[in-house]
Amino acid sequence: MPELDLTVSSADLTRAVCDIPSVSDDETTLADAIFAAVSSLTHLEVVRDGDTIVARTQLGRAQRVVIAGHIDTVPVNANLPVREVVEDGETFLWGRGTVDMKAGVAVQLKLAAELTDPRVDITWMWYDHEEVAAELNGLTRLAANRPDLFAGDFAILGEPSNGQVEGGCNGNLRAIVRTHGVRSHSARAWIGDNAIHHAAPILQRLADHTPADVEVEGLVYREGLNAVRISGGIAGNVIPDLCEVEVNYRFAPSRTPDEAVGIVRDFFAGFEVEVVDLAGGARPGLDAPLAQEFVAAVGAEPRPKYGWTDVARFSALGVPAVNYGPGDPSLAHHDQERVPVAQIDAVERGLRAWLAVR
Amino acid sequence: MPELDLTVSSADLTRAVCDIPSVSDDETTLADAIFAAVSSLTHLEVVRDGDTIVARTQLGRAQRVVIAGHIDTVPVNANLPVREVVEDGETFLWGRGTVDMKAGVAVQLKLAAELTDPRVDITWMWYDHEEVAAELNGLTRLAANRPDLFAGDFAILGEPSNGQVEGGCNGNLRAIVRTHGVRSHSARAWIGDNAIHHAAPILQRLADHTPADVEVEGLVYREGLNAVRISGGIAGNVIPDLCEVEVNYRFAPSRTPDEAVGIVRDFFAGFEVEVVDLAGGARPGLDAPLAQEFVAAVGAEPRPKYGWTDVARFSALGVPAVNYGPGDPSLAHHDQERVPVAQIDAVERGLRAWLAVR
Repeated sequence: MPELDLTVSSADLTRAVCDIPSVSDDETTLADAIFAAVSSLTHLEVVRDGDTIVARTQLGRAQRVVIAGHIDTVPVNANLPVREVVEDGETFLWGRGTVDMKAGVAVQLKLAAELTDPRVDITWMWYDHEEVAAELNGLTRLAANRPDLFAGDFAILGEPSNGQVEGGCNGNLRAIVRTHGVRSHSARAWIGDNAIHHAAPILQRLADHTPADVEVEGLVYREGLNAVRISGGIAGNVIPDLCEVEVNYRFAPSRTPDEAVGIVRDFFAGFEVEVVDLAGGARPGLDAPLAQEFVAAVGAEPRPKYGWTDVARFSALGVPAVNYGPGDPSLAHHDQERVPVAQIDAVERGLRAWLAVR
Repeated sequence: MPELDLTVSSADLTRAVCDIPSVSDDETTLADAIFAAVSSLTHLEVVRDGDTIVARTQLGRAQRVVIAGHIDTVPVNANLPVREVVEDGETFLWGRGTVDMKAGVAVQLKLAAELTDPRVDITWMWYDHEEVAAELNGLTRLAANRPDLFAGDFAILGEPSNGQVEGGCNGNLRAIVRTHGVRSHSARAWIGDNAIHHAAPILQRLADHTPADVEVEGLVYREGLNAVRISGGIAGNVIPDLCEVEVNYRFAPSRTPDEAVGIVRDFFAGFEVEVVDLAGGARPGLDAPLAQEFVAAVGAEPRPKYGWTDVARFSALGVPAVNYGPGDPSLAHHDQERVPVAQIDAVERGLRAWLAVR
């Protein structure tokens, strides 16, 4: 079993964590290594649930912060092992997981080992299956098995945010918009009715749409409504009787999931709409006193998080939560995924500045 | 090996030929049976090329007619063995191949055996691999190996035409019309550029288009321009950078293939167009003296053939060709494929009336 030395630098630990591949559904080797590394730390109580590891202090502090990160990645695409690259004088760690989100996990692991006497009690969570369906997510399982472990006054998710504090997140809806027709041989098209042609107004409405900017508790969330997939037709000589446009609506956290469904149904009025995925957003979470102290300590101007993240799970449980991690989220899942070493160090300093000083 | 008795009725022979399954690439059993049956006929010279059987009279007649039919079918879908069904008082043979085009083949086999002294020399061709890619077609191979066998003054293809004479055929073009964009995460759609949205005008132009009716040598060919497939997108959270619309243009035989390409490129001006399949049509072929005698003998009003058929191969070789066979072409490839017995008998009578009387 590979061993993780939690005393090396966060950058070196990032490299070590990345070099243990842990594509979703194959996290056990890394979970074993994390479990072994944190089990030797006497200031932490460690719980394991499948490939999710929870380690927490029990210092009797007045407040508790949950700090979480997922340990799985999307599939490797010839971008492991990690290598160091220099671009325009800046040093990066390049490879799968460096951004999403093993640099964040590495910082958390290092601080979990180091911070034996933090200002608040801390519950560290490293979990599996974030990059796949929500029902497989380690937090879904943990919330069912051990809801008590989610107790806290504030939560920080290590999702990449370029070392900035990103509050809350947009909600996320996916729907299939369908057109129907009548199948026929394409040599006698007039016998049939072309479902693909009927999809023209669906695409035109999307092309003409200007997404809204919505201010929520001082942060401006940019929405988005897009076709993400389209399919129709079964053969080169058959008039198709079905066309399906999969659309993705990213909605501001001020809208409820039900409101988002209504907006999408109205937008595609006249067409069959089937909602296939729906997750509410999370309000910024920055009004919590701990959040304000955190923002002040790391010295960052909070921004909105556009992508849905597991902060919404904490928000739904009544725990205000923000995203804070190294890496550019637009490089997540990218074949050129890479994180600036300076950001790893900055996030480590930011978290320590807030957690260490009593 | 199943044996074919060429002295039974055309309907019974249809049943026997259908009950030897011969999905494209699996025609050998049926080809063997046909080869055995016609090899015993002393008035025919028989040539075999793969699973294509050619049988011809050598009577020194002034003219020669080629009569051809393909022996393969699309895949069986629980519609064999053939059974007899009665609908609204009409008797049908129901099952795969009855329409496309084993009833036509059965009539040809019966007449090949019977017509020992026809008014013209006849070259019968039963060939493989019509239902798949053109380069696999038995006629493609035969034209390379034995071009001399295609010599003739007129050709009749037994493709289903409801027992009518259908002259020539439309041409057939398939093209991919592409839009491009920039991939991004759908949570930050403004970084990307949605290729699916760009396809809106492609579908709108198709939806707005009215196909032309084109008169060629007295027959009116209906054209058609349709999307037959559309695809775009790779995941529910990715703004797609590519959308592909496959379009199918059925064009009148008065247009050359090059003209058809120009029409499609003009129609989709501003978009990338890649022609992936192109086959010229065939002029009606009804001006040939033999064609006029044939039409008069069968007593049918000629119609245009909308779907591309192998008549275009004969037309390209300078042999005027028409389609004439039992069965409704709109039931070809259908799970409810079925042919009226009366049409089988009528086509047999029609061909005999013309070929037998000197």
